[in-house]
Amino acid sequence: MAVTDIATRTYDHNFRLDPIVRSLLDTDFYKLLMLQMIRHRHPDVDATFSLINRTTSVRLADVIDEGELRAQLDHARSVRFTKKELIWLAGNSFYGRARMFGPDFIAWLAAFRLPDYELRKADGQYELHFDGPWTHTTMWEIPALAIINELKSRAAMRERGRFALDILYARAKARLWEKVERLRQLPDLVISDFGTRRRHGFLWQRWCVEALKEGLGDRFIGTSNVLLAMDADLEAIGTNAHELPMVAAALAEDDAALAKAPYQVLEEWRQLYNGNLLIALPDAFGTPSFLANAPDWLADWTGFRPDSAPPIAGGEEIIRWWQEKGRDPREKLLIFSDGMDIDSIEEAYRHFHGRVRMSFGWGTNLTNDFRGCDPDGGNGLDPISLVCKVTSANGRPAVKLSDNPAKATGDPAEIERYRRVFGVGGQKARPVEV
Amino acid sequence: MAVTDIATRTYDHNFRLDPIVRSLLDTDFYKLLMLQMIRHRHPDVDATFSLINRTTSVRLADVIDEGELRAQLDHARSVRFTKKELIWLAGNSFYGRARMFGPDFIAWLAAFRLPDYELRKADGQYELHFDGPWTHTTMWEIPALAIINELKSRAAMRERGRFALDILYARAKARLWEKVERLRQLPDLVISDFGTRRRHGFLWQRWCVEALKEGLGDRFIGTSNVLLAMDADLEAIGTNAHELPMVAAALAEDDAALAKAPYQVLEEWRQLYNGNLLIALPDAFGTPSFLANAPDWLADWTGFRPDSAPPIAGGEEIIRWWQEKGRDPREKLLIFSDGMDIDSIEEAYRHFHGRVRMSFGWGTNLTNDFRGCDPDGGNGLDPISLVCKVTSANGRPAVKLSDNPAKATGDPAEIERYRRVFGVGGQKARPVEV
Repeated sequence: MAVTDIATRTYDHNFRLDPIVRSLLDTDFYKLLMLQMIRHRHPDVDATFSLINRTTSVRLADVIDEGELRAQLDHARSVRFTKKELIWLAGNSFYGRARMFGPDFIAWLAAFRLPDYELRKADGQYELHFDGPWTHTTMWEIPALAIINELKSRAAMRERGRFALDILYARAKARLWEKVERLRQLPDLVISDFGTRRRHGFLWQRWCVEALKEGLGDRFIGTSNVLLAMDADLEAIGTNAHELPMVAAALAEDDAALAKAPYQVLEEWRQLYNGNLLIALPDAFGTPSFLANAPDWLADWTGFRPDSAPPIAGGEEIIRWWQEKGRDPREKLLIFSDGMDIDSIEEAYRHFHGRVRMSFGWGTNLTNDFRGCDPDGGNGLDPISLVCKVTSANGRPAVKLSDNPAKATGDPAEIERYRRVFGVGGQKARPVEV
Repeated sequence: MAVTDIATRTYDHNFRLDPIVRSLLDTDFYKLLMLQMIRHRHPDVDATFSLINRTTSVRLADVIDEGELRAQLDHARSVRFTKKELIWLAGNSFYGRARMFGPDFIAWLAAFRLPDYELRKADGQYELHFDGPWTHTTMWEIPALAIINELKSRAAMRERGRFALDILYARAKARLWEKVERLRQLPDLVISDFGTRRRHGFLWQRWCVEALKEGLGDRFIGTSNVLLAMDADLEAIGTNAHELPMVAAALAEDDAALAKAPYQVLEEWRQLYNGNLLIALPDAFGTPSFLANAPDWLADWTGFRPDSAPPIAGGEEIIRWWQEKGRDPREKLLIFSDGMDIDSIEEAYRHFHGRVRMSFGWGTNLTNDFRGCDPDGGNGLDPISLVCKVTSANGRPAVKLSDNPAKATGDPAEIERYRRVFGVGGQKARPVEV
């Protein structure tokens, strides 16, 4: 006789909201590291973060219901750090270092809540802005992206029957495991999950993280998602992001200060952190000029995370720079995390193996690869290139150039000024898939 | 907060036995059709059914625990037809015919239980025999096979973790759906599930049947499994099996009677059934002699189920015979059910399309295709060629020749006699995969 748990069934059919963000730790670890620095060094800076959908062919405002979006954003604003979470942040070691987060920072987090948002529809897209103190708006980046991406997934699956969903997830699981079996062939692989922002959904990311833990063992070093790291006793992975040089650049008083801004934030960073956290993003305003003008002490850092150049070309460029600085690349680390998938991971691994230490941050193509998995067809589950970037600081426009003009953000006139100051010549645009 | 249903969890961790056979309807429909005839025409015949594992490389007695096997067989013996099941058998239409099963047969089934069994180990295999009235031993064929196959599956999965099992079933689901999507390309396909005896497990067969119903719609005409047909409101599919001519042949008093035996059972069959149930198995003692000596009225039957010749050669042989008898093959039916899988179904469909009506009975490769699905490797889930055949009738040895010597069963001396009587010349052995 079939037994139905009536309470579970009733609950499943009646809940008001299935929350996407249930914890403020459900964010990327680097946000917390940066937040501690922002609060320490720039507590009075205002920063606006804005949603940017680079995949303009997907009209998000037609796909996602505004009421549902507001309900999820409002729910995220109601979430607080729990006592257990703060105790864990205070007591855990990160990158081998105890007390990474100071007691006053932990105490400050206890009262933290996500600030208000501005949402409106325009041209089939959502305009979503977070205005206010940088110490607060910065924390919206990951939950905002996770909410929109999961609402998009839910919308694409809304009309699917029980059986179609079964096939859909079976295919996605089988596909990820094929990738895991290929990654197992790379004995010295070092890889982590960077897929929070672009995930299909929270439960699916959790499954993916468990899959990598099960399938790759020690080669899977952890996850950028702090909540999953805590729950699964994994390492929390991450360092810093483009928002640091972007805000520093926006606040620069003149072109001379602008040219120094990218190094100034690294100076602040190394005063607060050390060791494996000394990873620099070289590409905010173009890697060539960044390396050409970099101070010598940057060659002592652990490594770089080239984030918009093609992995092999970008890696070779950095290796040449280390060699020019008299450093042995075999003691240095390259972190590849820009749209990586199984083929590009294998290619970069084989290309650089033995020449440099490597680590891969696997994002969208880990936690949101459902392309072709829907038995009812369609591409509603394909990932899109959605970002949430700082767009102004203290009212001054923020700009990112990157090594790929397709990933540049900011006011066109300001972009031209940055290109001139940083001496960025002809860059070749490459399609941004994810 | 995670909610655990304590009652369910406690039950799941404590059950004494997870029964494999929970209903006497969990059998092939043809067993009930044959049983009605056996009871009507041969109520006093004794028949022994015996397990035969043609895949001798798999030592079943090393794989399956004897205590577990006895517990499952004993449990099957405790099962009775329920009132609901008998009402459904009496009230349902089969192949468009109401009251297929007579009231006295239904009343007799109410008291039916599976008879005793003899089980012992020898040379790493199980010797499993069912002795007694044919009216009872015949009903062991399907549950005995289903029990052993499912115990073998369970043994292969015993050491697997929660995650490996997740991947295993995800892969199997994704694979079956790939097959479904290929079958959808065949617009006039007629296919049914014949996979009860060789299934990976009951729940998996049920999933496969639901998959075909969902994916193929009307092209999926039903299942041989009576319980699944009842539960899913599908047609129960099946006609008759080799045991009828085998028992008739075993009881033949001399060579002349032996030569007539295969036609005698068809004569009995047509007195009891008609229409789509008039399907003959041509290969019990070799198709060529069966067709050469067949009575003219057999050409009026609906069709044939060639069961051991290669599908295309076997089908062409029968089409030629129909043409020689002046019949239009386009009005006749061929049922292919011997080890079919997606490639051979497509091939036969394309070869015969428009020339003859076709139906496919998809068995082992539908309900037990886990080859390569186990993330921990190994081939413990590969299907084996396990049958439960009548081996004697009233103490006289029973024999099957088939069109493939690798599928012949019986005493070698008797096989030689049958080959002489039925004029079977050189047959080419083909590997029996499933």
